[in-house]
Amino acid sequence: MKYYSYDTFKNDTKKLLLLLREDNFEAIVTVARGGFTLSHAISEGLNIRDVQSIRTELYDKSLKRDNITIFAKCQFNGIKRVLVVDDISDSGETLKSVMSYLAEEFKGIEFKSATLFYKKTSVYEPDFWINEADDWIDFFWERDFLEDKTIS
Amino acid sequence: MKYYSYDTFKNDTKKLLLLLREDNFEAIVTVARGGFTLSHAISEGLNIRDVQSIRTELYDKSLKRDNITIFAKCQFNGIKRVLVVDDISDSGETLKSVMSYLAEEFKGIEFKSATLFYKKTSVYEPDFWINEADDWIDFFWERDFLEDKTIS
Repeated sequence: MKYYSYDTFKNDTKKLLLLLREDNFEAIVTVARGGFTLSHAISEGLNIRDVQSIRTELYDKSLKRDNITIFAKCQFNGIKRVLVVDDISDSGETLKSVMSYLAEEFKGIEFKSATLFYKKTSVYEPDFWINEADDWIDFFWERDFLEDKTIS
Repeated sequence: MKYYSYDTFKNDTKKLLLLLREDNFEAIVTVARGGFTLSHAISEGLNIRDVQSIRTELYDKSLKRDNITIFAKCQFNGIKRVLVVDDISDSGETLKSVMSYLAEEFKGIEFKSATLFYKKTSVYEPDFWINEADDWIDFFWERDFLEDKTIS
């Protein structure tokens, strides 16, 4: 398990922003919860004020696509290019479902996806990603706020 | 203008989490964009998977309450206690509007609010806050991802 610090995140996100700048995205859809911190950084870096979120739940642990429920009420008024953000495409089932859902629900809008990590065994490859994941990533947002940590 | 680093954020958020633990919140509503990073940390610290977001827009710069439009499609199924999260209660108009909207729209649900900063001149005081803001806060998420910064 590899600890992924804020400093590493900052540098990776800057690299990701360089890849994203030319696409002129007008809105961001965050996949909850994993994409929240990254979306915030990207929205500031690209100066995109329209940030929405989408939530998924697995019926069970089988990770089959049909078992993913999407809770979403996105609204896009006159928007043509939307960036979908998550931290990692691991199994890829979540992002695959979310991208299919958005493409189906909002025809005429172009959706692209960005993550920090991509696993080669994923069933979905994001349009933009920075690192290949070969180990479990211990993201700072999952580690730094756990109850038993002391306040320094 | 005071730079608010990730390390300071981490310690403040841990203090905030200590205040929040006893309330047994079941869901989080994030005020976009400012509340995204804090919401992510709180959701991990309290182990709350249901994180939704709400977006506001000002018609003009007058900051009058009537000029705030709320874009929200929250869904709360069987949930009774919800935490609303933003980074700062500055003028307080946004949080005041959001809290009024949620209380009106979802009767029977208890909404409480949490921020990192609270300004004494704010028209709204969050239920939970950590620091009094006496200067402009330069949050790391607003500073660290700007285009002209070099990749180290």
